[in-house]
Amino acid sequence: AMHAEAMPIVDVLKLTQADSAIFPKGVPWIRYTGSLEEGLLDIDVVVPGKCPIFGVDNVGTVPLALATFAAIQALQPDLVINAGTAGGFKAKGACVGDVFLATQVAYHDRRIPIPIFDTYGIATTKCTAVPNMIAALGFKEGNLSTGNSLDMTQQDEQLIKSNDASIKDMEAKRKFKSLPLFLTRFGAAVVYVTNLLSVPAILLKSVTDIVDGVRPTTEEFLENLSTAAVALLKTVVMALKFVHGKTVTEL
Amino acid sequence: AMHAEAMPIVDVLKLTQADSAIFPKGVPWIRYTGSLEEGLLDIDVVVPGKCPIFGVDNVGTVPLALATFAAIQALQPDLVINAGTAGGFKAKGACVGDVFLATQVAYHDRRIPIPIFDTYGIATTKCTAVPNMIAALGFKEGNLSTGNSLDMTQQDEQLIKSNDASIKDMEAKRKFKSLPLFLTRFGAAVVYVTNLLSVPAILLKSVTDIVDGVRPTTEEFLENLSTAAVALLKTVVMALKFVHGKTVTEL
Repeated sequence: AMHAEAMPIVDVLKLTQADSAIFPKGVPWIRYTGSLEEGLLDIDVVVPGKCPIFGVDNVGTVPLALATFAAIQALQPDLVINAGTAGGFKAKGACVGDVFLATQVAYHDRRIPIPIFDTYGIATTKCTAVPNMIAALGFKEGNLSTGNSLDMTQQDEQLIKSNDASIKDMEAKRKFKSLPLFLTRFGAAVVYVTNLLSVPAILLKSVTDIVDGVRPTTEEFLENLSTAAVALLKTVVMALKFVHGKTVTEL
Repeated sequence: AMHAEAMPIVDVLKLTQADSAIFPKGVPWIRYTGSLEEGLLDIDVVVPGKCPIFGVDNVGTVPLALATFAAIQALQPDLVINAGTAGGFKAKGACVGDVFLATQVAYHDRRIPIPIFDTYGIATTKCTAVPNMIAALGFKEGNLSTGNSLDMTQQDEQLIKSNDASIKDMEAKRKFKSLPLFLTRFGAAVVYVTNLLSVPAILLKSVTDIVDGVRPTTEEFLENLSTAAVALLKTVVMALKFVHGKTVTEL
């Protein structure tokens, strides 16, 4: 996650920065650790840190997939929560500050016009239903479409529409460890990794900007980032409290 | 690499399929192992295997970055060679069957129009010069631009031009282990991983199609894949023989 998205969660959950020796030497990834529910629910927040060359937060599918892979290998979590921000489509009922639970994920920037490779590139993946959680916490639901760019070209838009997406993000972001809970929700680049390593995951996305609105994405994104982070924080804490003590069939 | 790119190399180098227990359980990655120069140069070829859902070869930056990461972690190679195919630009002197050595890599599908993030997204990385190798083996040199799509949109084209690219690929592909050699060439998505883990790498790309030509990319790609694979094989074997017994400063 970007620093602005992660820190409110780290602060509220009273997590502390952990030894990063679980990751290969030299990687910029940072782990915060702690627990909820009187120590019964272990939580790790992993953020990909800053690019050593440009000094900005590491974003994009490749850095985030790698951090997710390494974190799963090292921490062996029972559940991955991918919490972050996204652009929302007002045509699908999205408003700034909404938090969506992704029901299906797909890519919109992997165009491979060869039979079968074309569907492989889009990689549509249905997410497991968590009806009790949705009923209890009142999440909006929608399809998520992922790419490596903040903007949207005509070709991206066409694929996002064909993915029937309510929300659009850039990558997978943040991971929690919780015991002994089992959920299955996948999102964005993380879906490839959680599937590969057979770890259940849920995906929560807070809307920073309206993609099909009149204002420029970058302007809205920067303006609403902290509002969206607060909404995300509230939702993540609710979700953590909800999953505690349950199994996947109870969600 | 795609199967068609990898198998001629596996056959000619008389490599055998190795135990995949070095990778996490369930991943589709395949490792072939063997040696050159009377056992003095250990070689591992890692291919990302087939997608279990669609049955096609795994391609794209995320799967390949993960396989590269896991292979480096498991095999601790002294050198990574990223050998694969690419589209070439005739405006830069590329012909089908040419093998290019990448001198600089960058992305053309990570557009983040926020100051500093914009340059982070493109992630231009200069490669280390290997003048003796180029003089001895006569490689064409050029910048490589990487994206997750086989086709090229107007926005892609604009960024590829601004990256001054001679060749365009989709991802990083294949890895060799060689001892005790040290080279530094990076390419495509692999650059992030080899940089992250401080492993030297060279990047060799065989041209399957002319991007700025008149014929459709897909048609040319499929038609020339085996020709390009043979050219790549010849080049990789020459490069392996050349690097054997040398250090990075001698390349």
